Formats: sequence, C-alpha cells, structure tokens
Amino acid sequence: MLTATENELLTRVGRGTPMGEFLRRFWLPALLSDELPQADGDPIRTRTLGEDLVAFRDSNGNVGLVDAFCPHRRGPLFFGRNEECGLRCVYHGWKFDTTGQCVDMPSEPTASDFKDRLRVKAYPTREIGGMIWTYMGPPELQPERPPEMPFTLVPEAERRGLKFLVEANFLQCLEGELDTAHVSFLHQTFGEDGTGIQTLVRNDGYTNDRHPRLFALDTDYGFVYGGRRAQRAGNYYWRVTQFLMPFTALIPSASGYTGGATIWMPIDDNHCWRYLVGGTRTVDKWGSSEPLTAARRAILPTEPGTFRFPDGVEIDTRLGKFRRDNRYGMDRQKQRTLSFTGIPFIPTQDQAMTEGMGHICDRTEEHLGSSDVAIIHMRRMMLRMLDAFSRGVEPYAASHPSLYRVQPLDVESDNAELQAVLDEYREQALIPA
Amino acid sequence: MLTATENELLTRVGRGTPMGEFLRRFWLPALLSDELPQADGDPIRTRTLGEDLVAFRDSNGNVGLVDAFCPHRRGPLFFGRNEECGLRCVYHGWKFDTTGQCVDMPSEPTASDFKDRLRVKAYPTREIGGMIWTYMGPPELQPERPPEMPFTLVPEAERRGLKFLVEANFLQCLEGELDTAHVSFLHQTFGEDGTGIQTLVRNDGYTNDRHPRLFALDTDYGFVYGGRRAQRAGNYYWRVTQFLMPFTALIPSASGYTGGATIWMPIDDNHCWRYLVGGTRTVDKWGSSEPLTAARRAILPTEPGTFRFPDGVEIDTRLGKFRRDNRYGMDRQKQRTLSFTGIPFIPTQDQAMTEGMGHICDRTEEHLGSSDVAIIHMRRMMLRMLDAFSRGVEPYAASHPSLYRVQPLDVESDNAELQAVLDEYREQALIPA
Amino acid sequence: MLTATENELLTRVGRGTPMGEFLRRFWLPALLSDELPQADGDPIRTRTLGEDLVAFRDSNGNVGLVDAFCPHRRGPLFFGRNEECGLRCVYHGWKFDTTGQCVDMPSEPTASDFKDRLRVKAYPTREIGGMIWTYMGPPELQPERPPEMPFTLVPEAERRGLKFLVEANFLQCLEGELDTAHVSFLHQTFGEDGTGIQTLVRNDGYTNDRHPRLFALDTDYGFVYGGRRAQRAGNYYWRVTQFLMPFTALIPSASGYTGGATIWMPIDDNHCWRYLVGGTRTVDKWGSSEPLTAARRAILPTEPGTFRFPDGVEIDTRLGKFRRDNRYGMDRQKQRTLSFTGIPFIPTQDQAMTEGMGHICDRTEEHLGSSDVAIIHMRRMMLRMLDAFSRGVEPYAASHPSLYRVQPLDVESDNAELQAVLDEYREQALIPA
Repeated sequence: MLTATENELLTRVGRGTPMGEFLRRFWLPALLSDELPQADGDPIRTRTLGEDLVAFRDSNGNVGLVDAFCPHRRGPLFFGRNEECGLRCVYHGWKFDTTGQCVDMPSEPTASDFKDRLRVKAYPTREIGGMIWTYMGPPELQPERPPEMPFTLVPEAERRGLKFLVEANFLQCLEGELDTAHVSFLHQTFGEDGTGIQTLVRNDGYTNDRHPRLFALDTDYGFVYGGRRAQRAGNYYWRVTQFLMPFTALIPSASGYTGGATIWMPIDDNHCWRYLVGGTRTVDKWGSSEPLTAARRAILPTEPGTFRFPDGVEIDTRLGKFRRDNRYGMDRQKQRTLSFTGIPFIPTQDQAMTEGMGHICDRTEEHLGSSDVAIIHMRRMMLRMLDAFSRGVEPYAASHPSLYRVQPLDVESDNAELQAVLDEYREQALIPA
Repeated sequence: MLTATENELLTRVGRGTPMGEFLRRFWLPALLSDELPQADGDPIRTRTLGEDLVAFRDSNGNVGLVDAFCPHRRGPLFFGRNEECGLRCVYHGWKFDTTGQCVDMPSEPTASDFKDRLRVKAYPTREIGGMIWTYMGPPELQPERPPEMPFTLVPEAERRGLKFLVEANFLQCLEGELDTAHVSFLHQTFGEDGTGIQTLVRNDGYTNDRHPRLFALDTDYGFVYGGRRAQRAGNYYWRVTQFLMPFTALIPSASGYTGGATIWMPIDDNHCWRYLVGGTRTVDKWGSSEPLTAARRAILPTEPGTFRFPDGVEIDTRLGKFRRDNRYGMDRQKQRTLSFTGIPFIPTQDQAMTEGMGHICDRTEEHLGSSDVAIIHMRRMMLRMLDAFSRGVEPYAASHPSLYRVQPLDVESDNAELQAVLDEYREQALIPA
Repeated sequence: MLTATENELLTRVGRGTPMGEFLRRFWLPALLSDELPQADGDPIRTRTLGEDLVAFRDSNGNVGLVDAFCPHRRGPLFFGRNEECGLRCVYHGWKFDTTGQCVDMPSEPTASDFKDRLRVKAYPTREIGGMIWTYMGPPELQPERPPEMPFTLVPEAERRGLKFLVEANFLQCLEGELDTAHVSFLHQTFGEDGTGIQTLVRNDGYTNDRHPRLFALDTDYGFVYGGRRAQRAGNYYWRVTQFLMPFTALIPSASGYTGGATIWMPIDDNHCWRYLVGGTRTVDKWGSSEPLTAARRAILPTEPGTFRFPDGVEIDTRLGKFRRDNRYGMDRQKQRTLSFTGIPFIPTQDQAMTEGMGHICDRTEEHLGSSDVAIIHMRRMMLRMLDAFSRGVEPYAASHPSLYRVQPLDVESDNAELQAVLDEYREQALIPA
C-alpha cells in the first residue's frame, strides 16, 4: 500500500514532476529503429514523458526528435517535408536539422540573421540495439551513451525488437514485470491454445512449489531479485530477475531469447510502451542454444497504427492486435478449457491486467502479500532515490552505462541464499566488457 | 425552479453525497435476473451509484456483486474465472465468494492466515420479481428484504422485465414519469406508426380535457398523485399514479400490464437505467383481463451491449435499439403524418427528451406550470427527507417493504377529490398481504 | 508572442468574456441560407459563441434562432415540430415563434396568462447575401443591419457560399488568413494535383520575390494590409487584403471570385466555421470577367453532417470531406511530386495547419518574423479595441454597415507606398453606395 502522495510521486512523469525530472537524467528508448525505416522517409508523431514530438530520419540516416510544433507560429511539423537533411514545415517553409537548428527560412529576407538564432526544441538521439534512444535532461548532465543492456550487444542479424502501446501508467506495468508469482496463474495454459506458446514451466519447481520465497539485493544499477522454488529432487529452482534503473527488467527465460529485456517507457502519465527486445536465438537455461522456431518468434502480433489520446492528440505507433478495443481476444469458452484467461499471448494477458486497473492504479486500496516482495523493494528504492535526487544526488546508474552488462538467471542450485547463487553463476550473470 | 444548490443535492448519487447516502438505505435493483442467466456463467461489469462492480452467479445460483478490482493489486475481476462457488482473479488466482470473503489464495504460503482476513468489497443481493436487488448501506441498517412492489407478486411465468441505459441523471427521468401532461403530446399518434402501439387514450378524457387538474397526497411510502380530467358524460376520468420512494412510479395502464412499474435506478450522476417490469397479462381499467398480444408485448426493442462511459470505463448492459447514436430512429416525415415525434416506441420518445436535456438538467432555468404539480411535490418531499436524514431520521419506507403493496388507478368516478377516489377504489389500490 | 493572459483575452468567446461580449456587438453569420432550405422544414442544431441553439425557418420563411432547450422543463427543441409559424416542443406542446414568444401552451388551462409572459431565448436574424445573420448583444445596442460586405451586393443568381467546421479557435484561423507569406509555401503546387487548382500565382511576383514587404493602414472598419513583391519588370506586384472587424478578410483573387470573403465565425472557444462566400463569376485582376468553370467552382468538397463536440453535444452542420478524421487526404507520395503538402484543396491545407496547432495555439511559444506584420497588427488592434471596450467605448464599425463596402486589390503598380496604391486604385477598392 502506498499513500496517495507516494502514488502521485511515483507515477507522474511530466516535466517538472520529481519522477519526470529523475527519468530525464537517463537515456530513454524513444522508438524502434524500424519505425523510421529509411532516410528522408515519412515523419511520425510521438509522445515521450508527456511531450508531443515529431521524429524523422534525415538524408544521412540521423534521427531528429523535435517539438511537434514549429517555433514560428506553432504549425504542426508532422505534415512537414523531410528533405535534404532537415524537416521543412509546410506552413512557411522553415526547415530544421536533427539538432533543432533552423537551416532555412525562405519567408524571411535573405539578409536576416533570425534563422541562425532560431531553434526548435530537439532532443539528442543515439541508435544502438535496434532502438533510437534520446536524452531529455539538462545538456550539461547528458551521459556519454545509452546503457549497455545485453540486447544492445547482440549482433544485429540475430536481434529482434517489438513494442506496443499500453493504456496504463508505466509503474503498474513494471510492477507486473517484477511479479514472479503471477506467471503461475495469469499465464497458465492447460493445452495448446493456438498462440504457439504452451507453457513457461521449465522444470517442476513451478508446479511443485507455487509459493516461491523471494529475495532482493541492491546493486549500483538497480537490484537483483530471486524467486526460490523447492524442487522434488531436494534442490532449488531459482529465477533471478535483473531490475535496471529506471524501468527495465531482464526476466529469466521469459521468452527463451538471448539478452531479452522488457522496457516500460512512459508515454505520459496514463500510457506507456512495452518494448520486448532481445536476440532471435534461443538459449536454454544450461547454456546450449537452438534455432528460433517460428512458433517461438510469434510472441505477440502487433501492427502499426494511429492512437488517439483522450486529449485528442494522435501519435503513429505500434499496437498489439489484441487489445482493449477487441476485449483482448478473450474467449470465455477457451478460458474454461485451454488457458487461465482465455486471452491469447502472454503480453496481451499482462495488458488486460494492467489496463484493467485503470490508468493509474489506486495503490491506497491494495493489499500486498508475501509474493510482492520485489514490487515493494522497487517502490522503496524509487522513493529513496527520488528523495536523494530532491537533495541534489544524481542517479549514479544513468552515467555509468557499462553497469548494465548483466543477465538474468534461470538455474537449479543447492544454494538457499541469493548471494550464493549469484556467486555460483557469476560468469553467466555478468557480461565481460 | 430549483437553486443550483438544490439541483446538486437532488442529483448527485456518489458515496458521501446526501442523496447518495440516502439511496444507500434502500434495497436497489442492480440487474435483471436474466442478465446472469446461469450458474458459473460469464461475469459482467456494472456500475451502481457511481461504484464500478462485477456481478457473477455462483455454482449455487447465488449472485455476487463485488468491487471491480481485486483487493490484492487491483487486478480487474471482470476477466476472472467463475468457478466452484467463487470468482477467481486471473492475475494471481485469489478467489472470492459472493459474500466477498477470500476463499483461496494460492500465491501465498499455505500456513498464512492472510486469506481469512481478506475480503473484497461485496454487497448483499436478493433475487425477487425477476430482479437482483442489492443493499449498499451500513450493514447494521440493512432492511430485512426488498420492497414488495406489485410486480414481485406476479407469478414468474406471467412476468416480464426489460431495462435499458439512459444517458441522463435519474431525476429528470423520474420527473418525466411523474408528468402526466406530456402523455397527451409526446406520445400522441395520428395513426398506426408501426410500433404496435396506437394510442394510450382509453376514453375521451384525454382528448376532451387536455388540462388535467392535479392532486397529490403524501403516504408512508411516497405519495399518490391523481390527474382529473372532465369527460363529456359529466363525470371524471382519473389517472392515479403511485410514487414509491426513492425512484419508482406505478403508472396507471401505461403499458396495460398487471403490476407494471418503472424504476429509475442511478448508474452514476450522469446515467441511469430505466427498468420496465410487470406482468405479461393485460388488465383493462375495469378489471377484466385479456391475453397479451405480440404487438402489446413489443413495447421497446432492446439488446445486450457494451457501454463506454466518458471516463473510459465499460459496462455490459442492455441498450435500447433506438438511441442517441441513431437519433432515436427519428423520421421527420413520420413526424408530419404519423406521430407527434416521428420517434418509434414510447420509452424511446421519453429517452429522446431526457437525454436531450443534457446529463443533468439545469433546473435554475426552467419555468414550471400548473401541470408540474407532481414534479414539484416529489422534489419538495425529497428535499424534506434529505433534510431530515441529515439530522438522523432514517427513511421509514426503506425498512417497511410491505408498504409497497399498492397499485395505480385508471378509473372513472363522480368524485372530484382524490381522497374520495382512493376510498372508492380502495380494494383495487391496495394489495392484501 | 503574446502573454498567456493576452492569449486568453483574444481567444475566449463565451458570454461574459471580454472578447465574447465585444463580438456580441456585431451582426454575425449564424448559418448559410441553404442550411434551412424551406419554410416549415427540419430544424437544425447549432452552436454560436458557445451557446447551444436551434434554428428553424417558419411558414413565412422567417428564421428563428432560439435556445436549444424549452424554457418549461428544458426539453430539447431540436425534436420540435416546425409548424404554422412556430416551433412546437414535442414534450408538452409549447410553441414559440421566431421572436421567442410563446404562442401556444396547450398543457396549461386556457385562462392562464402564463403563456403571454413566457419567452424562449431568441436572437434576431436577418437574411442577406445568402446568409442568416444574428445579433446576440444587448437589444438596445442592436445595429440597424448586417455589414454591407461586397458579397452581399452580388446578385443572388451569381452568388456562391460554402462553409465547413474547423476544430480550432477562430483566431489562429483568422491569422492564417492574414498571412500572405504562407501562400508561397503551403499552397504551392508542382503540377496538376487533381483538385482543379493549379496555382495561385498570377504573375512573376510570387516566384521572383518570396519575401514580400508588408504594410498596414488602420481604417474605420479594421485595416488594409498590403504585400509588396518586386517584379522582374521593375515595378511591384501588390496584394492588398481588407480586414473587416471582427473576423472577416477579403483576400485578393484568392479564389478568383467577385466579392469573395472569408469569415471565421467562432462556434465556441475550440471550434469555428470557415465561410467562403462570394460571386460565381471570376474576375481577373484587370477587371475583365470570364465564366466560372466547374474546376474553379470546386474549391472544396463539403458535406452536411453531424459533429459531436468533446462535451457530447451534437450539431448539424457542413464538414469538409477531407478533414482530420481522414488525415486531410494527405498523400506522402504526392507531397514528393505534386504539391508542397500532398493535401488536396487549399482550404483543407489551411485546416491541417490550424487544427494541427491544437484547439488554441500556445502563442507564448511562437517566434514571429517580418512576414507576420499583419498578424501582429490585427492582434494589437484587437487588444486596443478590447481595452477601449472595457472602458465603455463601443465598436464603431458594428453600427456602420456601409463601411464594409470595400474590395481587396491584386494589382501591379509603380508605387512603393500602400497609401499611394490605394489612391491609385480607389475606384476598384471602394464600392459606391
């Protein structure tokens, strides 16, 4: 349970809010690279931490992420012409490069230096790991580069990334990600449900012990969190999740992909994107790899589309094919016979839950149990860091990208303590620089 | 005319408002029984007095009416599994019975007593008269049973009930119900308009005297209100309506059904349901009965559907087939030749009026005439009772269900006084216990 | 740039706001005449300066513009019966004439004088120039007649008028109208784009000189504003626009029609109509006329439809066929090859810009250049007049309709000063009484 004040503190992401300013200290994922597939292609509308922006890829392949409105008379840059290293507003032809500098102002006299003094709001971008990253904080504090998450280290040819929009605040989505207990219920299947994923259960730990003991250890980049389940053989089945500040989780074998990460990027207070990124090569938990089957690849069908926010603004983004509008594809008959929910696809099942809580979950009314240890741990860490941040302490992880070279674990062990398991599997958990 | 303050007082139904708390002293209709047709069937989403709820019929046929959100982490219970005498949240498998008690908590250690101490908000239900009733007030004040309205006394085989959602506050709908004058206009037909209802006019009182004199008499359950119209024969045509606290009207021969009642149940401040319930056997005003024709049965086509409120929340309910979205089926050509409105079906004509006033009618701008006596009477009674309630006086009718054994009258009489007419037709107006 | 306070002052049009009261001193266009094509035809719903109204044409052809709600119990007058010189509410049959007087009240006793004392809010109307005008200010200040704009002087048989709804505040639309610079960009075409309009460029001034020098001169009715472009021949190409208080522009040869005017009538703070009115006979800038071709006539396809405001209220009006919902018909491929925007039709291109700014443009964030002289001039004039108005100075133009007998200019001249050009073309710019 949180107080109403704490709930506000943790969920509001607009400029000027404590969480909003804190998040703006990190490099953040703005888009998948393939949302802007080609140089001089169509611009797209987006929203990031509550700010309406337009993205475009210029003639050199660089990505601009600029204010949705031209600084002249606030014409919409979305309709702009993406041409010769700049986006040109169609209203009066003013043109801006990816840094935001006005590079052409044909409606003004040639002699004027107005152009040189004029900029559109623009955020720096970097492209690694199949994603376009941006930094929205004070320029003098801009970290050198985005975090070196494992998926950014996977060869491009073996990489895969997808995203979809969720109509809920990022925090309740992130909490679902840190919640190992729900896997045994929400994602349970009784047979082949046609989505190509039969079960997440790798060993008898899941079915033998549905009350995992949970442990968490703080790290410089966030925390490690392990769920220990007793196996019939007498040892333990450990699932160890990495939580990377500020909203990424590396879930053990959630998809069976190498380097898989789930990132919950806030669009605004009431919406976020779920990014599912990683390698296309499966790795079983003892290290051997096998080729990715088509069935395993199809973890969720998505499609490009336009989303209209309640305030009327539209963005161009990816949507899950099963979503609120079609009741998540829920089939009550299948719920009786094939799966716990009757909803196809694991991420869609999550989405039904998190959107079903309302835009921002009312945490003053919740009753947390022993399975919610990681959620509680994350909230306390966030509140502690926000408190320190308000006193001038910058987030350490934001400026230390190499801290992010870590992996989750999905292992058997005789060890009953998380630290001992981490020591035992140290080579697997840390990616050498 | 009301002051803005009075208008607020009479129309706001949320928890903590004067009217909202007053209404919570009564058993209220939550659903038609056939909205939950079978044991262990699909749960449905609903909203009652502004509270979002989920309803389900358990294995024993009992109906649960519980908070829309699981008390654990606020997962949506609508997606829940309705199984073995309880609704199980699909997020973590927590299960609740119809009383709200948590009866299974598989994600927690078996030894924990957390489950026994945990409840979801649940309201008691009773099922009589083809309806599911609920009580949302303080448990210690819960009346013994729902009101014994005449339709609850009709044999089930001869009973009929329908409902549809109206996008307007309940009070303006209720006022339309108490407004005998509009029948001569809004519902007037000039010929067969294809809806199976030619006219409500039973005798020449309607056409001979369109300015009825109105009289009202307070009772323990609400009030009686009579419209007196002079007939050519020299005597009077009396239509006597029963107003049953807090929002039910028994209209004389409005439908020609036995025991017919119209109930205006608030969904929230801006929406309500119209329940049209009664027997399927017609009774003419002199007591003889005739079989119900198909034409008379079709008083309004409705259909199950999903309704999305402006705040984005959805419920599963019944909607009129002719409604705001299709302009109530209005046909301007038919308005010129066949009926006063060109809108099919009497309840749809009402709906066009009440929704057309806006969600909450601005009563500071109205100008009431002599035909609005019953409306004024009802408002004054409500304001008086709310005032008494604020000083601790509980509503008497709420805890005296047998008071509701009354009937409306649709009679001819030589008497010019309402009390005399009630005495004359006492046997018809009172249903013996 | 404006301060937030100034932006509010200039854009809010509701009753009681400074701009709202100021506008209510003028005769304003409420509808096109052909929106109410026949006597005793269907009433339509409309909204003017934020007030919800119903319009009807009575048996004598007079137009009533009355409150959307019956003064009795606030029944919606839209469903009313338009019959025998009055609109009859279908709820209780109360009937009102075009002056708002209640002329029949059949639900009340015949002896009552309630009817004679009751009025519905009604605004006076006049019909000239193919438009229905209304006056919404204090009756004692009502000007004699609507302004004598040139299109009102065109013979009816040669007149043409269209309108469509724009989802933006009137001020940013009006500013686009006064912005000669955007014509060279937004409306530029590279070839025949299928909309029947190849180019607005009449001479080489446009292409030779894209940085017009702008001049403005105040007048009693608003101001004159001229754009001077150097021509290769050594003289100047002058486009002179007439700004008529409070929101009309006469644009030179924008459409090639005689007497063309563009009027930006506020619907409410967030919406306005664009009226495009004028003669159907084209006039080239040296005075000779040619018949109107079908291609030139098709300046924008519009259609009648229902528009639902975000607050849920609906009106019956005209909409552009290409609009926000279908992304203004934008074709990115055509944008690369055929026109600057890839959007068909000039008014649609404007609409994409003004709606794309958001409902009310945030003028605290703009950066005006030398091409925005007329916009700055208009704002200053408006602020000055609002300031005077707040001190009791009534707008002079509102009560002097003959001031509006002026024309725009689209001429070549050796003169470098606007006043000299106006003197040179005096006969063309002023229409004799």
